[in-house]
Amino acid sequence: MKSVIIGQSGGPTAAINATLAGAISEARRLGAERIYGMIGGIQGFSAGKYVDLDEHIQSDRDIKILMQTPASALGSCRCKLPKPEEEPEIYRDIFERLNALDISCFVYIGGNDSMDTIAKLSEYGESCGSDIRFVGAPKTVDNDLAVTDHTPGFGSAAKYIAASVKEIICDSSVYDIKSITVIEIMGRNAGWLTASAALAQGADCGGVDLIYLPERAFDLEKCVSSVRELLDKKDTVVIAVSEALRNENGEYICSSGGVHAGLDAFGHKIMSGTGQFLAQYLGKALDVKARGIEISTLQRSAAHLASAQDIEEAASAGAAAVRAAAEGRTAEMSVIRRIADGDDYKYTIDTADIKSIANAEKTVPDEWIINDGTYVSEDFIRYARPLIMGEPDIIYENGLPVHIKIK
Amino acid sequence: MKSVIIGQSGGPTAAINATLAGAISEARRLGAERIYGMIGGIQGFSAGKYVDLDEHIQSDRDIKILMQTPASALGSCRCKLPKPEEEPEIYRDIFERLNALDISCFVYIGGNDSMDTIAKLSEYGESCGSDIRFVGAPKTVDNDLAVTDHTPGFGSAAKYIAASVKEIICDSSVYDIKSITVIEIMGRNAGWLTASAALAQGADCGGVDLIYLPERAFDLEKCVSSVRELLDKKDTVVIAVSEALRNENGEYICSSGGVHAGLDAFGHKIMSGTGQFLAQYLGKALDVKARGIEISTLQRSAAHLASAQDIEEAASAGAAAVRAAAEGRTAEMSVIRRIADGDDYKYTIDTADIKSIANAEKTVPDEWIINDGTYVSEDFIRYARPLIMGEPDIIYENGLPVHIKIK
Repeated sequence: MKSVIIGQSGGPTAAINATLAGAISEARRLGAERIYGMIGGIQGFSAGKYVDLDEHIQSDRDIKILMQTPASALGSCRCKLPKPEEEPEIYRDIFERLNALDISCFVYIGGNDSMDTIAKLSEYGESCGSDIRFVGAPKTVDNDLAVTDHTPGFGSAAKYIAASVKEIICDSSVYDIKSITVIEIMGRNAGWLTASAALAQGADCGGVDLIYLPERAFDLEKCVSSVRELLDKKDTVVIAVSEALRNENGEYICSSGGVHAGLDAFGHKIMSGTGQFLAQYLGKALDVKARGIEISTLQRSAAHLASAQDIEEAASAGAAAVRAAAEGRTAEMSVIRRIADGDDYKYTIDTADIKSIANAEKTVPDEWIINDGTYVSEDFIRYARPLIMGEPDIIYENGLPVHIKIK
Repeated sequence: MKSVIIGQSGGPTAAINATLAGAISEARRLGAERIYGMIGGIQGFSAGKYVDLDEHIQSDRDIKILMQTPASALGSCRCKLPKPEEEPEIYRDIFERLNALDISCFVYIGGNDSMDTIAKLSEYGESCGSDIRFVGAPKTVDNDLAVTDHTPGFGSAAKYIAASVKEIICDSSVYDIKSITVIEIMGRNAGWLTASAALAQGADCGGVDLIYLPERAFDLEKCVSSVRELLDKKDTVVIAVSEALRNENGEYICSSGGVHAGLDAFGHKIMSGTGQFLAQYLGKALDVKARGIEISTLQRSAAHLASAQDIEEAASAGAAAVRAAAEGRTAEMSVIRRIADGDDYKYTIDTADIKSIANAEKTVPDEWIINDGTYVSEDFIRYARPLIMGEPDIIYENGLPVHIKIK
């Protein structure tokens, strides 16, 4: 096998470096000449930025630390390549660089846009008779990629969210007074992460009371009534909301363009979060103590509470991508197939045509959203629970998880 | 030993239940007749709310799960008792209830206000010849209690903050663009938690660039200059700020009463956080992408990433309080004395007169705040590092840490 180059693209997750680690290990096993990493994705590579990963990742301990490092150790970019016929010089330049490094396998770890990059590079490669194989490995906390059962990165974020929600429920119920807590969770179009708040419920935790996903139009006054009813029966109401709730007209219920936005000290519309806004609104409408908690970027980079299942699958997906390229396949992405569910959960890694994945988006199935759009069904729990199982054995130094620093 | 009653008071921490567990175990070891828990602190107990802890906490596993449960398992209150001479009937009622349960030892776990409760109850007890012993055990994430070297709860919150800051730094530096991240941390008067962001720095992490504590007046324009200078040298600037920064006139730089507060959809002043405000301000002033991250209540209840050192000390402090009462002492609080520092850190538990603790407040020493109020010294690191060491072996079920449910 000639040399391999690996890149990371799009937003951070707790598992994207596990996929990098899996790809490195598999490339070594297959006898790759050298293993390179693009710095800053395809954008950085186009500007000549790359590293020799054989220098940076040597021992088994390096691999282990890489796997527990959150966000993209190689850096990332948000870059959609133009069509090859529109700006062929960009492609000529990239292929020159790849040939100069004697690359036969190009692995790109990312979400929708990254798979579009793989599709275009392989298309161009085919058109000019290149034998470089272009393969993708899936990554996104949002879990919105098509074809794959779920996406590496989601399980760890879901575990962190569910664990944090359990802790917030403990925290919010200590006083003997009425209160509302609104927890804002990531996911602009797909509600997978927000739905994960439902995993908190169990023998030791009553769970959240209401869950609002971006898949459904949000009705503010209906929400006020639901919370009022709950407060008649219990002291503490905890609500999970997507960061991007929209009303039936498609307008965000807050944030800069939102219909309820306020003005800041500069006279500009406030970029306050949905959770903060909703907490204020409910608190005033119902005259009850209310607070908003935004789990924020913590949820996508909390490698210290990663899911062992997710990390294992992330590494396997990276390895499978390299293997596919070594077998001569191109324009494919590794995908996870669920072959058994529940306590007997089993998965296998397969590959699929990149065109079926690029630019598609998978949202929470309509029938999994229940109670008039205020909760998720047992089907969701059955789907998500296996993905948050297990805790990796994290290496700590000076009281903190150790990370790797490459770029 | 006759019966023991234990209460929890004030805001949640990740370690307050470890103190409860330590008190229960020690009371059992000393042969206490029965062990009760007040529900909702002294306020709930005054209304007749308590449980038999021998029913709720039986096995070693129960103790272990109690120790990993965040927030007050017995519920809490924020209640300052009136002076005994002002409303003696409240005290008469409490003592009647205590005598009915045959209590000889009253343990109250809490912060400043809770120690004031202990001081008043023991004063009243002495005045009426009661032989009930009243002792306190310290608790607060804020670490602002006097006399004790540090306070149980602080170490775990500091560990979570430092680990999260490391993850945020990974997350914020993936793109090859200029950006500012402002992390808002708890602590209205004392900057101990905000200072803990400094613990993130190490061989694998550049750390935060600026730290602003509430102990110093905050100068917004000076902050803009500092960030501008940093952005000339590096892409990613990360700042840790206390939730309660005030300018030289003592006005909060944002929040409801703040000088820069905006108006919300109701025309009321916005309760936006310091971090969010500062991110918006810096982003606009310097024309750079900026975001605010509020670690929020997550930091005080993140038992999943507790410090083993903190949890051990918390349990010891609870045990010491019971022991002090058993030895006939009253109006005392268990305190932690540091007897060796650095890698050889050692502590011992002692007790101190409650009057030296109640209503006092300990802030970060002036000489530990350096670089013109924008960072903390090595003295702080030496002080705080031992307190975040070690990770408890957490029991997980269904992918999540298990908690105990008492009330």
